[in-house]
Amino acid sequence: MIQIIETIEAKEAFLKKLEVRGNMDTGEYALAAKKIVDRVRSEKDAALFEYTAMWDCPEIHAGNVKVSVEDMKAAYDTLEPELQEAITLSAARIESFHQKQKQNTWIDVKENGEILGQRVTPLEKVGVYVPGGKAAYPSSVLMNVIPAKVAGVERIVMVTPASKDGQLTKEVLAAAYIAGVTEVYKIGGAQAIAALAFGTETIPKVDKIVGPGNIYVTLAKREVFGYVNIDSIAGPSEILIVADESANPTFVAADLLSQAEHDQLASAVLITTSKALAEKVQKEVARFYEIMPRQEILSASLANYCAIVIEPSMESACELANAIAPEHLELAVTAPFEVLTRIKNAGAIFLGHYTPEPVGDYMAGPNHVLPTNGTARFFSPLGVDDFIKKSSILSFTKEALMPIGKSIVRFAESERLFAHALSVQVRLDEEVK
Amino acid sequence: MIQIIETIEAKEAFLKKLEVRGNMDTGEYALAAKKIVDRVRSEKDAALFEYTAMWDCPEIHAGNVKVSVEDMKAAYDTLEPELQEAITLSAARIESFHQKQKQNTWIDVKENGEILGQRVTPLEKVGVYVPGGKAAYPSSVLMNVIPAKVAGVERIVMVTPASKDGQLTKEVLAAAYIAGVTEVYKIGGAQAIAALAFGTETIPKVDKIVGPGNIYVTLAKREVFGYVNIDSIAGPSEILIVADESANPTFVAADLLSQAEHDQLASAVLITTSKALAEKVQKEVARFYEIMPRQEILSASLANYCAIVIEPSMESACELANAIAPEHLELAVTAPFEVLTRIKNAGAIFLGHYTPEPVGDYMAGPNHVLPTNGTARFFSPLGVDDFIKKSSILSFTKEALMPIGKSIVRFAESERLFAHALSVQVRLDEEVK
Repeated sequence: MIQIIETIEAKEAFLKKLEVRGNMDTGEYALAAKKIVDRVRSEKDAALFEYTAMWDCPEIHAGNVKVSVEDMKAAYDTLEPELQEAITLSAARIESFHQKQKQNTWIDVKENGEILGQRVTPLEKVGVYVPGGKAAYPSSVLMNVIPAKVAGVERIVMVTPASKDGQLTKEVLAAAYIAGVTEVYKIGGAQAIAALAFGTETIPKVDKIVGPGNIYVTLAKREVFGYVNIDSIAGPSEILIVADESANPTFVAADLLSQAEHDQLASAVLITTSKALAEKVQKEVARFYEIMPRQEILSASLANYCAIVIEPSMESACELANAIAPEHLELAVTAPFEVLTRIKNAGAIFLGHYTPEPVGDYMAGPNHVLPTNGTARFFSPLGVDDFIKKSSILSFTKEALMPIGKSIVRFAESERLFAHALSVQVRLDEEVK
Repeated sequence: MIQIIETIEAKEAFLKKLEVRGNMDTGEYALAAKKIVDRVRSEKDAALFEYTAMWDCPEIHAGNVKVSVEDMKAAYDTLEPELQEAITLSAARIESFHQKQKQNTWIDVKENGEILGQRVTPLEKVGVYVPGGKAAYPSSVLMNVIPAKVAGVERIVMVTPASKDGQLTKEVLAAAYIAGVTEVYKIGGAQAIAALAFGTETIPKVDKIVGPGNIYVTLAKREVFGYVNIDSIAGPSEILIVADESANPTFVAADLLSQAEHDQLASAVLITTSKALAEKVQKEVARFYEIMPRQEILSASLANYCAIVIEPSMESACELANAIAPEHLELAVTAPFEVLTRIKNAGAIFLGHYTPEPVGDYMAGPNHVLPTNGTARFFSPLGVDDFIKKSSILSFTKEALMPIGKSIVRFAESERLFAHALSVQVRLDEEVK
């Protein structure tokens, strides 16, 4: 059910398959998304509620689209205490971790009259998209909202489509309440993205939109990029486990399945130096499969993008891991911090035998919104950085400007930007009063 | 020549004009760029050199496309000493500023066996695009390359199109040498972007591509985004000066012109509380215009996107500045740090009467690659941050996992992710050995 790969040819074929996993031709969806965005941009509420009626719920209008903080609290109050506790603990731990990510404004004051620095300010308004229906994950609400809150964003606007009868999932509302969302609107799809990007009579225009969504939402985000900022586009999810003979095959098998259950494109790969472990894990995966719900998804993803790869050494195992650049990387080895030194590319790294990936999904504190599909080569986890912006600060006195003035004039002239040179020259030439 | 705006109606009309300044329909260019990218992706060198022969120089092939570090040094050696000095001083100051932007890896080690942290690693390979011909600015080479160098990027690959006779601008090569570019290739256009994104027999595949280019380059970067990372898309440049009666009209006029000379879409706006200053600046602009080269560009940009706006108070002046969110903001006022507290959105802020914007373009140290066209609401200056990535670090012992295990299981079950719950449960259930 989950294949063991031992030959170089089989490995290369599998890697090739992984590489094109996220590719899809989005041409026709893109046109549809663009049309929705354009209409909401020009017609505002009229188009927004027309689409909302068509796809979500016909009863939603400007008068009832907004959910009050009281309603959010009421949803939280209806949850059973154990889940309340889990959400609250998770939120507290996420906040505590993200507090450590905060960056400070700094300036460097020189005696000659020169001050240079970098100012950090939060974005003013942020939109968080939360999918409706089965894909409505309260953990995802916490992970997208809390970093914005920690960054100091004043207004955190959540949008999420209602069901046909106008309702929202109570777990999502409860998580929004705990995370500190300032307002919720019952809208979704490309029309919600357009409303957040350009503003309507009812929906505020924001500076950045984050959060996962379906193909229309994703393409609409790409369409409005530049008018607002967006988070990076999420691809199918993946885990890679590097294990030596010290690993527990039951643990490893469960961790592989925890990724494989996400969807049919999910990838779960074990790279190990131990053939004995490989075979045991294969058996454990088969055993667990029998008792798992979601078998339809599991059987597809296990057959498609999951594998156990045997490597001759920990060194080559880590090289392969770096080439794949996984979203989640588990180091199920005797000395994980030693192996960490060989790792270059991964969204989140889970060290040792008692740090299964779901700890990171729900409770540890680091963000579970991570670069997917090999983009950990250049993207980072979602965090406070995504909700701030920087501005450079420059301040020169006349005395500080004088000694470098000539070089600026010379440099500007070499680029034939004569008014640039002029603007420094008039200050150099200024008569002493 | 530069208009003075006093009425609310005129102000709103001008703001509206500014807002749509960067808009353009890129449909037909996008198709052309996509075709080039697709061909280079599949045919590699063959397509790359076919396009290079067609648009740049017919003599360039795999054997002579690469410029050696010796050639870069030779170009530097031919520059006149004053310019050598200006470039070297500029590079040293840019490096010194960007060194302060470096972020550290941190971990938080708890007594209960829990370690959480965030690792910072440089990108491995970066591509820097440098336009050819008249738009070849050595200062831009320094500003794009040095932050990557400071971040610790191993391989910094510069691409720039050669002239018809196969030559590159010596100033650009000299700047590349001083900045620490590791290799230069004589290629340009959308084909160079595709080569960097996917690799060819001759050109290495990189992790991120930065640097300005023409419309094909820009659209090709958008096309390859996701396969590699890219910098933010540069729009037309702009300056906004907030001035009170203490400002020197000659300085302000020169600063406005230094922005207006960039191109016909450039915007230079003065917002002032002093009508007397407004009128003097208007006269100084007219006086300087007569003695400036580039009058064709200046007359267009001055008429289009430049204006002097009179505001009743410093407070309303700053509100307007925040709404425009300019790339460059000068505070030509008596107490600039006091006014700074009112500023929310700006790429770089130049304080006081002796900090003209060209100081930042060439010499101060902060980056001159800044968010344009109102995107300072959510984008930051180019910097070391753009050449690093972060990975989360998570490590739990069994003792640390136990107390939070139940909450994870409960949370995962509420999201119907049963294998997620399983992966924690098997660890909670583990028999003590």
